[in-house]
Amino acid sequence: MKIALIQMKVQDQKSLNLKKAKKHIKEAARNGAELVILPEMFNTPYNNSYFEKFAEEYPGESTDVLKNLAKELNLVIVGGSIPERECEHIYNTSYVFSKKGDLIAKHRKIHLFDIDVEGGAKFKESDTLTAGEDLTTFQVGDMKFGLIVCYDIRFPDLSMNLALKGVDAIIVPAAFNMTTGPAHWHLSARARALDNQVYTLLCSQSRNEDSSYRAYGHSLVASPWGNIQDELQIEEGILYSNLDKDYITKVRGELPLLKHRRPNIYEMK
Amino acid sequence: MKIALIQMKVQDQKSLNLKKAKKHIKEAARNGAELVILPEMFNTPYNNSYFEKFAEEYPGESTDVLKNLAKELNLVIVGGSIPERECEHIYNTSYVFSKKGDLIAKHRKIHLFDIDVEGGAKFKESDTLTAGEDLTTFQVGDMKFGLIVCYDIRFPDLSMNLALKGVDAIIVPAAFNMTTGPAHWHLSARARALDNQVYTLLCSQSRNEDSSYRAYGHSLVASPWGNIQDELQIEEGILYSNLDKDYITKVRGELPLLKHRRPNIYEMK
Repeated sequence: MKIALIQMKVQDQKSLNLKKAKKHIKEAARNGAELVILPEMFNTPYNNSYFEKFAEEYPGESTDVLKNLAKELNLVIVGGSIPERECEHIYNTSYVFSKKGDLIAKHRKIHLFDIDVEGGAKFKESDTLTAGEDLTTFQVGDMKFGLIVCYDIRFPDLSMNLALKGVDAIIVPAAFNMTTGPAHWHLSARARALDNQVYTLLCSQSRNEDSSYRAYGHSLVASPWGNIQDELQIEEGILYSNLDKDYITKVRGELPLLKHRRPNIYEMK
Repeated sequence: MKIALIQMKVQDQKSLNLKKAKKHIKEAARNGAELVILPEMFNTPYNNSYFEKFAEEYPGESTDVLKNLAKELNLVIVGGSIPERECEHIYNTSYVFSKKGDLIAKHRKIHLFDIDVEGGAKFKESDTLTAGEDLTTFQVGDMKFGLIVCYDIRFPDLSMNLALKGVDAIIVPAAFNMTTGPAHWHLSARARALDNQVYTLLCSQSRNEDSSYRAYGHSLVASPWGNIQDELQIEEGILYSNLDKDYITKVRGELPLLKHRRPNIYEMK
């Protein structure tokens, strides 16, 4: 299955962001992608002060664009994430639309990004956002996908749970920064892929030096063997990659990690 | 706490291996190490055909050497591992002796290494060995340690369980090979350290080109931030490193992964 990760530059006007997403998705479709992925908070700068202003109830302007595009282009769109408003809450939510334009999955980021690194990045999503409560999977053809958002990748139990549900790949719209990116981006992608013998697909915004939050970029695909299969650098662009179910089967046969698990010994007590 | 990892070359005579371990441990003691670690199967070539021949009941020749040394030198010895015989079973077992020479912990490798990589390494421990059934921790001063053996590192739930038991460091006598080493040694060490915000201490045999099983070497210490703090290359040698409890506290404050876990959502069902 040919997939495309859209590493787009996000600006402070929603209409420009939607226009840009549309342009890239159309290009990916022309190039034969069956499934395209946008970055975390692709319609808004990654900044607490914008989340409320850019938030939408479902259905809304941004999800309408994605829904219609998916149907028009006959491809699956994983809509990175956007701030979703429901009653008094705002969530960091990823919507997935099928080739027919149906909403087939929705993931609300489970772990809010509250960090404060000395001399480095500081961010507190919980100032504005509410955390999700559910795991998310969906099926496209013979491939099953897990969907998490950014900081969710740091919790190994979550990805393991998805692997045990039988996913072949974990999709991660994300926005690591210039502290956590160089330190942990590749490591997290490779570790989740290797431990769970799945592909991991991390889609970032491109680097924007003018932004208050500088995204790390480096959208990538890690293979079930734990190596980086394909990767962009920091500029805007589209990353194409192929997911191969037979390769997953091969790796799981040679190094049977999921089969060798002994959860009765170390399940949490 | 100053610790030492002994990356020793293992030969096919047990007496020579014990003699060499002794020499290195004495040197580490002279250099101020409080705790020393030997590699997996330090008294025997890593080969199914040797395990039965070199196996010992407890107490035995190898554990006596370690016990007496620990007492004589007033340091903690994590005895890598040796083939342990109990009734008709052989285990891959790590013994830990306190500064007084008391046996304070014993870990039997939980996951047996049965892999078969196309064009790469093939090994089947379960042909000769029996798997352990228990998790292992021990305390030295104000630091709590988890102890696992080699392939055990590949199971994230196991290390997470140890982290939730409050360990500051996970010790891993190990013997990755020339297939799994270049692909996964550093990645596994760094991932377990970062995810669980602990030190990981991986102690390998040195590379022996004459051996049927060529160990990867690269004994190392990974920090709770997920970087490689200290590392050897492939030759025999001693790696010294310092474990800092305050640094663990700092990292856990800045990036509160253990606090942010939401196990009620993704505990295995």
